[in-house]
Amino acid sequence: MSHNSFGHLFRVTTFGESHGLALGAIVDGCPPGIALTEADIQGFLDKRKPGQSRFTTQRREPDAVKILSGVFAGPDGVQVTTGTPIALVIENADQRSKDYGEIANKYRPGHADYVYDAKYGVRDYRGGGRSSARETAARVAAGAVARKVVPGVTIRGALVQIGPHKIDRARFDWAEVERNPLFCPDAVMAEQWAAYLDEVRKKGSSIGAVVEVVAEGAPPGWGAPLYGKIDADLAAAMMSINAVKGVEIGDGFAAAELSGEENADEMRAGPTFLSNHAGGVLGGLSTGQPIVVRFAVKPTSSILTPRRTIDRDGQETEIVTKGRHDPCVGIRAVPVGEAMMACVLADHFLRHRGQIGG
Amino acid sequence: MSHNSFGHLFRVTTFGESHGLALGAIVDGCPPGIALTEADIQGFLDKRKPGQSRFTTQRREPDAVKILSGVFAGPDGVQVTTGTPIALVIENADQRSKDYGEIANKYRPGHADYVYDAKYGVRDYRGGGRSSARETAARVAAGAVARKVVPGVTIRGALVQIGPHKIDRARFDWAEVERNPLFCPDAVMAEQWAAYLDEVRKKGSSIGAVVEVVAEGAPPGWGAPLYGKIDADLAAAMMSINAVKGVEIGDGFAAAELSGEENADEMRAGPTFLSNHAGGVLGGLSTGQPIVVRFAVKPTSSILTPRRTIDRDGQETEIVTKGRHDPCVGIRAVPVGEAMMACVLADHFLRHRGQIGG
Amino acid sequence: MSHNSFGHLFRVTTFGESHGLALGAIVDGCPPGIALTEADIQGFLDKRKPGQSRFTTQRREPDAVKILSGVFAGPDGVQVTTGTPIALVIENADQRSKDYGEIANKYRPGHADYVYDAKYGVRDYRGGGRSSARETAARVAAGAVARKVVPGVTIRGALVQIGPHKIDRARFDWAEVERNPLFCPDAVMAEQWAAYLDEVRKKGSSIGAVVEVVAEGAPPGWGAPLYGKIDADLAAAMMSINAVKGVEIGDGFAAAELSGEENADEMRAGPTFLSNHAGGVLGGLSTGQPIVVRFAVKPTSSILTPRRTIDRDGQETEIVTKGRHDPCVGIRAVPVGEAMMACVLADHFLRHRGQIGG
Amino acid sequence: MSHNSFGHLFRVTTFGESHGLALGAIVDGCPPGIALTEADIQGFLDKRKPGQSRFTTQRREPDAVKILSGVFAGPDGVQVTTGTPIALVIENADQRSKDYGEIANKYRPGHADYVYDAKYGVRDYRGGGRSSARETAARVAAGAVARKVVPGVTIRGALVQIGPHKIDRARFDWAEVERNPLFCPDAVMAEQWAAYLDEVRKKGSSIGAVVEVVAEGAPPGWGAPLYGKIDADLAAAMMSINAVKGVEIGDGFAAAELSGEENADEMRAGPTFLSNHAGGVLGGLSTGQPIVVRFAVKPTSSILTPRRTIDRDGQETEIVTKGRHDPCVGIRAVPVGEAMMACVLADHFLRHRGQIGG
Repeated sequence: MSHNSFGHLFRVTTFGESHGLALGAIVDGCPPGIALTEADIQGFLDKRKPGQSRFTTQRREPDAVKILSGVFAGPDGVQVTTGTPIALVIENADQRSKDYGEIANKYRPGHADYVYDAKYGVRDYRGGGRSSARETAARVAAGAVARKVVPGVTIRGALVQIGPHKIDRARFDWAEVERNPLFCPDAVMAEQWAAYLDEVRKKGSSIGAVVEVVAEGAPPGWGAPLYGKIDADLAAAMMSINAVKGVEIGDGFAAAELSGEENADEMRAGPTFLSNHAGGVLGGLSTGQPIVVRFAVKPTSSILTPRRTIDRDGQETEIVTKGRHDPCVGIRAVPVGEAMMACVLADHFLRHRGQIGG
Repeated sequence: MSHNSFGHLFRVTTFGESHGLALGAIVDGCPPGIALTEADIQGFLDKRKPGQSRFTTQRREPDAVKILSGVFAGPDGVQVTTGTPIALVIENADQRSKDYGEIANKYRPGHADYVYDAKYGVRDYRGGGRSSARETAARVAAGAVARKVVPGVTIRGALVQIGPHKIDRARFDWAEVERNPLFCPDAVMAEQWAAYLDEVRKKGSSIGAVVEVVAEGAPPGWGAPLYGKIDADLAAAMMSINAVKGVEIGDGFAAAELSGEENADEMRAGPTFLSNHAGGVLGGLSTGQPIVVRFAVKPTSSILTPRRTIDRDGQETEIVTKGRHDPCVGIRAVPVGEAMMACVLADHFLRHRGQIGG
Repeated sequence: MSHNSFGHLFRVTTFGESHGLALGAIVDGCPPGIALTEADIQGFLDKRKPGQSRFTTQRREPDAVKILSGVFAGPDGVQVTTGTPIALVIENADQRSKDYGEIANKYRPGHADYVYDAKYGVRDYRGGGRSSARETAARVAAGAVARKVVPGVTIRGALVQIGPHKIDRARFDWAEVERNPLFCPDAVMAEQWAAYLDEVRKKGSSIGAVVEVVAEGAPPGWGAPLYGKIDADLAAAMMSINAVKGVEIGDGFAAAELSGEENADEMRAGPTFLSNHAGGVLGGLSTGQPIVVRFAVKPTSSILTPRRTIDRDGQETEIVTKGRHDPCVGIRAVPVGEAMMACVLADHFLRHRGQIGG
Repeated sequence: MSHNSFGHLFRVTTFGESHGLALGAIVDGCPPGIALTEADIQGFLDKRKPGQSRFTTQRREPDAVKILSGVFAGPDGVQVTTGTPIALVIENADQRSKDYGEIANKYRPGHADYVYDAKYGVRDYRGGGRSSARETAARVAAGAVARKVVPGVTIRGALVQIGPHKIDRARFDWAEVERNPLFCPDAVMAEQWAAYLDEVRKKGSSIGAVVEVVAEGAPPGWGAPLYGKIDADLAAAMMSINAVKGVEIGDGFAAAELSGEENADEMRAGPTFLSNHAGGVLGGLSTGQPIVVRFAVKPTSSILTPRRTIDRDGQETEIVTKGRHDPCVGIRAVPVGEAMMACVLADHFLRHRGQIGG
């Protein structure tokens, strides 16, 4: 079952609400003997952390992770995983709950308020409760562990579109991603986006985006056809991230316009492929080429323009979502997408090893 | 685990290869007391069946389903489900294995041949074996059962794009879908597509497509956030279908270009929504609006133009895929997409009822 | 979820009723490249098959297994598993449904009739439907595949008690098990049991039994503490067999009377253990010693002495269960227990290899 | 998968080592709207807590539980579950790690030291690490939540045997269980056991025991045949508890000696049963009668008499397990057995409601 768990052999279960005491994850099934300290995880959390530029929410969270279990320092003093469940906890610090008074009784369009009430009859409305993007900190922490399970694999993400503005593929440079606060691989576009986002932010508006995550170094054969296909798991993983509305692998929706001749990734000795329309996945299995996933993130639903809605009693009203919000929630989705890619690959690496050996 | 199973409370496990003795599915967890005969399933299989128009493969398969277990005729003579596993078997008739001799040793670009060998070291190469679209017959059979589990829900699919040719939304008519062999909801476009596909077919080429599946009647609250979100499960379900490279919910990738104001689905008393950019899903839960999923299907990889490839020994060679193939495999993906939607909804209906009651 | 599935990486899903068209299993996750034919499975089915001596039901079933998928003959002609789901089907032949007319409306004490009606509101009453021991044929078929996944492991079962008559441990001889129709490892006791069972059978009565299954050759470390412990999975596996009411590992209930000194299995270099009170499992992990499981089978509930019961309308009545039955259903449980042991070990072997490698 | 998770719709995942920072559980799938505070859980933890009498380990742990997520105080101030994951954390206080120096390199017979090293190559040896009975605190905390999910069901446990001394069934009195520190339902035997255990303790020895857990009030029909049978899940649940070597339902192993006539639980209108040999389970489904489970607990492996063993280098040596230990670990297993019963019932209640409704 998968209410709040993800993966099978490498299995992540998260808990926590935006304004509760803490959030976290249990990582179960991690192989033993892998060096792991809090510092290994903290770097990735820092990358996702809010309040680092004017383009993300001004909520200040240290996002300091604590490892409660599953590691042990051997005689040589190096702390390693022991094969038992790794509990990761991040305390909530800057909760500022008073900001959220109004939303206790009104449903914010685009948010999960209404449907949580419809399902559960009760909801922790503070900051969106469980449905807040704050939960993605737990994903990033788990993803940091997952990366260590597949050490030969490089996983990198970038923002490739904000609103109507797409990067120029000819200028794509992974090094550039590290240099700007927008995870933009195109130095020219990074500046245009910054200006554009300033406008969006000043209007109290928000805008959607597209994230691309690429994994290099996975060998051919990972995946479990037909219902544990690696692309099916990646689709679920990315779609489970807050605000994501679409996922594609390789050419994705563009493949609908291709002929069979154009789409065929021809092969030469190596084995090697002459192109990668498939995005590194055929028949649900990795091909050995880079695994390329893109996902669309809708605009932040919290905006300053009043929107029509209803309250908990079904009465018609209006709402303006004050508080601290991201003008483009897609930015902080980049490290989250990387983390989900890492979790899927770690799981499939272990599953493959289980069924096939090696 | 999910090698070849899908769903949790309503759980489907499929088996079978393209040219094996039979393929089929076990549907486990179906509630008892639901009227079910082979005829209920056969209608959906006939819709997917190959060889029905010049636009699909000319393989002739009766696709006659047999129910081996899980049903029983009570004293009133009506055959109903008993709550025990329902085994559905479809024998393969027109196997014509000799067509596939060449592919035993060569990898067809775009197909799963290479990766199956890379993973398993052995593969049933006849007609693509397990990775053949023939397996989708089992999905359609299971989907027919799933529909009966959620009787108030209407699930319909249509083809909305072939190659560069998209339907005109203003002419969208579900009734039209039944009238042409291309599941096209736009009568004008249906004729254009037919002419276009004739060209594609005559060239021995193929073309991609986009399928849209809509479910109406699901109440708000189905779904299991955060890792059993209904949209995450739909994404996995659709991505697991052969040749699918992208999935989107509601506005999908177009949401990347929207502002928060545009994207917000405002609410009025009812409760009702004034728009459905969300495609019927917020926070991973159904909103009560139509659930709208689209998925991109790549062009059939089997084409008559020679492509460069390698053989099992790694030697460079060329291949032309003869045999009987769909010029646009997206066409027959329509009933398959409907079936996957039905399976996801049946599962989430039962899961919701389990956790919440009612 | 586990309605009708068992195991995780090596996963068995069964279907079928006693008097339906067929029963069977899908074995999912089996590693590829393992030689497998129907003959490999048939031998184990024959061992379990009814009607082979006067001590088991006289129902005549060929129990001929057919493999529908998941195997393929490579160029050398040897048929091997391909890593895809293996569907195993056994047709029901000698159904003789007319014998079971009376039980359509009356609940047989000790059988599942009443609870199936209470749960499902409908049941296939013919021969007990899904709750019939006939389903264990599917387990034995799956177990035959499982054995091939752990080739270095020897799995053997024996009957060690019938009613009050226990074997003499000093006379325990595995070779003897093959020589008598009661799977008795004690030649002297085998004769006493035969005479005793003749009496039981002539009275139209039945009697309980205890089965012991031993696996030798599993290395230390299989199992997944704390909730996938190998002994926990064995307990579930054995308890899931029809009529089983108790399971114990190693000394089992006798351990309640031991002191810590007596119970400790001391170790010497090797590593080796000086005793095996633990039955080959410590902390949920295999120790490398023989894994020893015993389970208690209650007497067949179908007996010729009238018992008080109620009918479907809740009216009080009596019932005599005619038809063909086993005087001691524990006998045929021996190969079933072996099969369940094999399935648990195959699953844990693959899981261990997944998490740890090697 | 189930490394460290238990249950499906009501799913418990535990983490933590004996001497780590903390241990705990995530309870996922709990229905919303159930009143729940830390005090509701604390009472059950106190019952299990060590150091409460001279018969249990003298380790002093407050075992104070903290709820980190999944609850929320509505407008009426009552804190209720929200349907999201409930994280329960218990900090370790009295760790006294220095006691455990010797066991870092030597394997204690009867403990999991050797097999953890064999599997994982590394282990947290302090107090047994993950394999310590300390983990059962997390089970008891989760069980306290589970009880609230099935409010009409009464779950009680008792110790019915210590070493060779069994209670007198004629004196069985649930009220007595609350009056003595041994959870003994037989006042006379409670005093005998106290004297007997004093002897055992003074010798630095230990002794096994049998625990009985009874659930009253579950309706007929809970369970998921054939591989999610309620008795199979109970068997796994109990066998997964530290030191448990056998599980039985109803008459259990005694059923091996019964005839079909004796074993049949006859029925009368009501519906009601005239006896309960079945222990409340037939065909894997609850019958509506009390569900009766017993499990055997081996003697504590930590004893003061030297035992032969090997060290991590395979060298032969001896070990005496000092530190603070329970002379009869079966005593504290009583609340743990109750908790596991509660978890199984909560899971099956939700699963039943999912498949059947109501």
